[in-house]
Amino acid sequence: MFSHKFDDLVHALRRLPSVGPKSAQRMALHLMMKNRESAMLLANALSEAAQHIHSCEVCNSLTENRVCDICASHHRDETLLCVVESPADVMAIEQTGSFNGKYHVLGGHLSPLDGVGPDEIGIPRFIGRLSEGKIQEVILATNATVEGQATAHYLLEACKHLPVRMSRIAQGVPQGGELEYVDSHTLSQAVHQRMLFK
Amino acid sequence: MFSHKFDDLVHALRRLPSVGPKSAQRMALHLMMKNRESAMLLANALSEAAQHIHSCEVCNSLTENRVCDICASHHRDETLLCVVESPADVMAIEQTGSFNGKYHVLGGHLSPLDGVGPDEIGIPRFIGRLSEGKIQEVILATNATVEGQATAHYLLEACKHLPVRMSRIAQGVPQGGELEYVDSHTLSQAVHQRMLFK
Ligand SMILES: [Zn+2]
Ligand SMILES: [Zn+2]
Repeated sequence: MFSHKFDDLVHALRRLPSVGPKSAQRMALHLMMKNRESAMLLANALSEAAQHIHSCEVCNSLTENRVCDICASHHRDETLLCVVESPADVMAIEQTGSFNGKYHVLGGHLSPLDGVGPDEIGIPRFIGRLSEGKIQEVILATNATVEGQATAHYLLEACKHLPVRMSRIAQGVPQGGELEYVDSHTLSQAVHQRMLFK
Repeated sequence: MFSHKFDDLVHALRRLPSVGPKSAQRMALHLMMKNRESAMLLANALSEAAQHIHSCEVCNSLTENRVCDICASHHRDETLLCVVESPADVMAIEQTGSFNGKYHVLGGHLSPLDGVGPDEIGIPRFIGRLSEGKIQEVILATNATVEGQATAHYLLEACKHLPVRMSRIAQGVPQGGELEYVDSHTLSQAVHQRMLFK
């Protein structure tokens, strides 16, 4: 419709999560009708982000530096480590304002049928981080899904021999719920009421 | 969160229609986590579109050429002209596959309180187009809103002296509409403008 470049734009917008053909059209028209400036601004933001944002060398979250702000901060408790599946989960927990430790981002969960084993989610690297000896408690904050639970369970077993307290965020996150979609009060409670395993 | 460039991206995404803060975050994370390629593709599509798409010299719709494909086509009825408010309306009518004439895009509707008069929506230019003598019927397809109706009425008056047939898209109960749920203004119009079969 209209032109090839317009169609290219509609197709590219459809790659955004939960954007169907109708929304993509509406977005493209909106940008082309009265928001040329927004279109250029978004184009630049996308290209800058895609070129400069990468994984933090320490926690595997997202950053544009070598090490992310949370890892670099001296105002956070270095003895407390929260293990999550993705940077979206870091963001969700940070937004509760109720956690002041450090993070470790696995970048996924165990899923043997998809060929995702301990190596694929960097468990050896995580164990290595614990072995440095600073961390006294690990909060397992993987999702409350079947895979997230299995991953938490696996980590619990894998850390059995280490002199580290292990906990799991409390039930309170609804069954099958993914952290990034849970309201911040529930999530904050789940962090506070974590169950102590060891 | 994460980095300045990440925040810039979230802010830029919020300029898209019906994208709130949560969706913008989700989109940014989605693009940064597993879709670097989509981010670059969207960046390029946006910048290409913003730089090359402009108004058609003839109909005022969107095109990347001097004249849009519909205006340039020899397979469409040049005697039939459909007047709409925006390129989105051209797209909606084209997608029905039931119209084979040409278009004229006003780029808005009359709205005296907002300082939008006949000149602002190019009515002189539209009258000029009719005066060329090719067009035999004008279909007024502005929205069925108060402003759209007023604009259609204004156009009808403005074209009174021209030897051109004028029509207005039908208004009535939408396909699948149940009478008890249709607003009474629509229903009253549907009764008054009933189609006579015999
Ligand atoms: Zn980090
Ligand atoms: Zn045109």
